[in-house]
Amino acid sequence: MSVTVVGSIAFDAVTTPFGSRERMLGGSAVHFALAASFFDQVHVVGPVGEDFGEAELSVLQARGVDTGDVEHVAGGRTFFWRGVYGWDLNDRETLDTQLNVFADFQPKLSEQSAGADVLFLANIQPDLQREVRMQCRGARFVALDSMNLWIETARDSLITALSDVDCLVLNDAELRQLTREPNLVRAARRVREWGPRSVVAKQGEYGAALLTEDGFFALPAYPLETVVDPTGAGDCFAGGLLGYIAAHPDEEPDHELLARAMAYGTAMASFNVEAFGVERVARLTSEEIAERVGELARITRFVEKPVALRD
Amino acid sequence: MSVTVVGSIAFDAVTTPFGSRERMLGGSAVHFALAASFFDQVHVVGPVGEDFGEAELSVLQARGVDTGDVEHVAGGRTFFWRGVYGWDLNDRETLDTQLNVFADFQPKLSEQSAGADVLFLANIQPDLQREVRMQCRGARFVALDSMNLWIETARDSLITALSDVDCLVLNDAELRQLTREPNLVRAARRVREWGPRSVVAKQGEYGAALLTEDGFFALPAYPLETVVDPTGAGDCFAGGLLGYIAAHPDEEPDHELLARAMAYGTAMASFNVEAFGVERVARLTSEEIAERVGELARITRFVEKPVALRD
Repeated sequence: MSVTVVGSIAFDAVTTPFGSRERMLGGSAVHFALAASFFDQVHVVGPVGEDFGEAELSVLQARGVDTGDVEHVAGGRTFFWRGVYGWDLNDRETLDTQLNVFADFQPKLSEQSAGADVLFLANIQPDLQREVRMQCRGARFVALDSMNLWIETARDSLITALSDVDCLVLNDAELRQLTREPNLVRAARRVREWGPRSVVAKQGEYGAALLTEDGFFALPAYPLETVVDPTGAGDCFAGGLLGYIAAHPDEEPDHELLARAMAYGTAMASFNVEAFGVERVARLTSEEIAERVGELARITRFVEKPVALRD
Repeated sequence: MSVTVVGSIAFDAVTTPFGSRERMLGGSAVHFALAASFFDQVHVVGPVGEDFGEAELSVLQARGVDTGDVEHVAGGRTFFWRGVYGWDLNDRETLDTQLNVFADFQPKLSEQSAGADVLFLANIQPDLQREVRMQCRGARFVALDSMNLWIETARDSLITALSDVDCLVLNDAELRQLTREPNLVRAARRVREWGPRSVVAKQGEYGAALLTEDGFFALPAYPLETVVDPTGAGDCFAGGLLGYIAAHPDEEPDHELLARAMAYGTAMASFNVEAFGVERVARLTSEEIAERVGELARITRFVEKPVALRD
């Protein structure tokens, strides 16, 4: 089986307290694809400009990612984002966003991409997400990410897009913004009324929470002493999550499978932030992933021993 | 064995989106004591004014709490706090704080309070915390809480107070402020250099994290659809945590025991926020606590199933 992702393919300029990069490979589809590539065949859908060359493509291809649907726009420039993080890495400032080739992007999926088993609609304009969803009719599990920009400028389109996906993966602040409901449990219920059977709230350094009709599950972020660059962590999380689901074609994507998948998403995100851009995930090994998931199980488990309570 | 707590005994005026109370029983020592009373004998140390009567004391006494060291100050008025919460219950505004009898408080512990096995130095001026610590020489486990006010006005005293306690229990933003270290793992290491062997970072609706020399443990908050009043949640958390430790006098308060204890702290905090002030915890039952701890184990556990990863 395989996973398709549609989203941005970008050059990022990032400054954090630990250094900076002027023009590194980034974008939601790229981060997602590299993370998911450890689990299954991945197809990337998205536009790039003439400034996007073989060196960038080869990072994806080295991980076996299918780049056949990376559309090279003649005369165009690749999506560009510039941001800066302060000492509190939860707080970032966007200094520049250049849509470039994304401004006129019309997704056209190849047979391979359209035939994927699992689909991730990364954070792009909701109407584009719907177009891709419609081209990918056979997907058995579809997840969607979004951001405050679309909640503010295209909320109705976003809610329409949600009606045809299985899972919403969203930062928790944006989940509250989208639903206008400050309580996480109520916010997730509202989303489920719009369509998705499951909601994954990304909580940054606090981890992530899953809410389905079968209940609640939460996992902290993997504790790291040094977080170098958080850019792309959420997409790596989604890559691990959906990659794990794609790797289990015979299992229903229910609460229990999603909870297990979240552990892999959490592990992938934790590697991502250890270095700038895709630097860490591009040189990651299977052994490291398995070890970190085991660690996550260890640091979230407590022994249940009954105690005599005094009424 | 028994638990002693020194801290505020207060009247609180609280407004949340779900209602308000003009003058309800509150204070860190009160919230802590009620929560810990489910686990062991609790002694409360702190001053009250002439406006504090039998009705208030009886709430503590009904849970078997020893109020012999509640000092009634002739002509004095009880500590008073007024605050308001918006829809984002993580964000509260203090409208009024009247120290009243706390301004001249000199703790004097009875033999019973001084002989406790476990001691909680709730959030009061660090020099007072040190005085109580010195009167309680035999305690085998001592934890301390504090707040931004003392970090800003008495940081050196606070760090001195830390040199003689086993565990710091602090909001994570304040932990960063105290250590001037935005990374949680590094912040905890800094605190451990000052004395405490363990650090518990309270993360509000995200739960809590434990950091010791043996590693990291994290637990989400129990998911609730309605949070009525968060006042006192942190102290109820500490009450469950230290109460559980007190109830296990034969176990070393190591990483594993603290992790188990955190589950009880998390459960106690979750009940606290379901109603105003002490209303919910005052009518809580052992069965409800045990059930919620079981739920916490369930919603944090994922099945580990190896997956074939692609290098």
